Amino acid sequence: MSTDSTSDSKSEQTADENLFPRVRIVLVEPTHPGNIGAAARAMKNMGLCRLYLVAPTRFPHEKAIWRSASASDVVENALVVPTLDDAIAGCQLVIGTSARDRRIPWPMLDPRGCGEKVEAEHRQGAEVALVFGREAHGLKNEELQKCHFHVNIPTGKAYSSLNLAMAVQVLCYEVLQAHIQQLKSGSKSKVEQPWDMEYATTDVVEKFFIHLEETLIEVDFHDPENPRQLMTRLRRMFNRIRPDQMEVNMLRGFMTSIQNKISPK
Amino acid sequence: MSTDSTSDSKSEQTADENLFPRVRIVLVEPTHPGNIGAAARAMKNMGLCRLYLVAPTRFPHEKAIWRSASASDVVENALVVPTLDDAIAGCQLVIGTSARDRRIPWPMLDPRGCGEKVEAEHRQGAEVALVFGREAHGLKNEELQKCHFHVNIPTGKAYSSLNLAMAVQVLCYEVLQAHIQQLKSGSKSKVEQPWDMEYATTDVVEKFFIHLEETLIEVDFHDPENPRQLMTRLRRMFNRIRPDQMEVNMLRGFMTSIQNKISPK
Repeated sequence: MSTDSTSDSKSEQTADENLFPRVRIVLVEPTHPGNIGAAARAMKNMGLCRLYLVAPTRFPHEKAIWRSASASDVVENALVVPTLDDAIAGCQLVIGTSARDRRIPWPMLDPRGCGEKVEAEHRQGAEVALVFGREAHGLKNEELQKCHFHVNIPTGKAYSSLNLAMAVQVLCYEVLQAHIQQLKSGSKSKVEQPWDMEYATTDVVEKFFIHLEETLIEVDFHDPENPRQLMTRLRRMFNRIRPDQMEVNMLRGFMTSIQNKISPK
Repeated sequence: MSTDSTSDSKSEQTADENLFPRVRIVLVEPTHPGNIGAAARAMKNMGLCRLYLVAPTRFPHEKAIWRSASASDVVENALVVPTLDDAIAGCQLVIGTSARDRRIPWPMLDPRGCGEKVEAEHRQGAEVALVFGREAHGLKNEELQKCHFHVNIPTGKAYSSLNLAMAVQVLCYEVLQAHIQQLKSGSKSKVEQPWDMEYATTDVVEKFFIHLEETLIEVDFHDPENPRQLMTRLRRMFNRIRPDQMEVNMLRGFMTSIQNKISPK
């Protein structure tokens, strides 16, 4: 890199390199188009190009193009979707950025661990989403609960709130770092064995959660008027397990069986 | 962190934490005041606060304050100096950001190695400068030659030019990471033994270089009209050696002896 300059190593570059074709960067309701552009540039600098925008306040916008500099292709190819569910549909690993100290602790990664996990699962063929929250309020609890892991960027105590695009920069930097480390270490991977079945995608698991909640209500275990944190805890548990497609099928078959049992068609 | 949000862990914060009181962030001739503000915010997020601006194009500027968000104190306390020499005067470790592929290779660090070196030498009492170049052209060769090490942020091949403030973010992030790792590992430091003498400061070494070149000319070893890369290579060598104060005194005494010998007063 050379901080904004035309690089000395430009001759090495290819125009369309995409090191991480199965990694999405998801920005949830970004307010400032400048942040979208800066995030796009940070992504492309680190070899990523798939940008998803969930209900952006102002987009398309010339400021997004301007701040992206030579990453305007990433901005122009960004997919605008109405909900987070749309943005992470088809993903097998979803990691959300979060401040610490949530009421219910969730499996946490630090940025380095996040980079290593994204790189390793991507390498094994997974579709991955890294999800960033709103500039002013981050991700909502219900959004965080759709994630398998949360990642927190450590800060000094005097000022802990990173700019959105800066957070994208740090996490994408760690993804590329993990890739470089992986290339250096060759096949001596520390990653666990690949799973025999593919992880279920988020949309499939989301349907399971709906089915599960429905069933819980039907068996009077769960009162949506007084939910306590039942669904939160169940989501956390299943997201930690990260069920594969066959396991989800089994679980849903089980729910269906219960439903058929208590109110036979 | 929580991407722009008021942090959930705000209660832990103290207003004036400064984890790295002897580390300077030096921006050489920054053009865009927005970048200055964004760099200040990135610094404060990572526990750094000493910003030096070498001949900024537009400063002070409201855009710098605006982009710094809650790091306006860092912007307001920034020291504006006319030259890089002023900015690094008194420093014992100077690291400059650089693209790869300079004509003469220099001792290189990757961002992680840079963070570890800054943290370790700072912890042992050194005054440290991290130097960033112009948005459009980076650091000049003569500026890079004032550095003990160069650091390069790896990028994807498609787009290798980071925004200035993003580069500040990544390197400051690695400095804080190194600090956190150090706290975790306690006193089991991998760092080499502290030197018995303090490293000479940059201004002292710079005077030595001037004295050295003067002497080289006087002995007809060096022709400033046809310099080849003699001074560059000598600078690299001495910067790699990183002489301590006593060694500089010895070297200068040697130069003086030569000068006295060839043109006795």
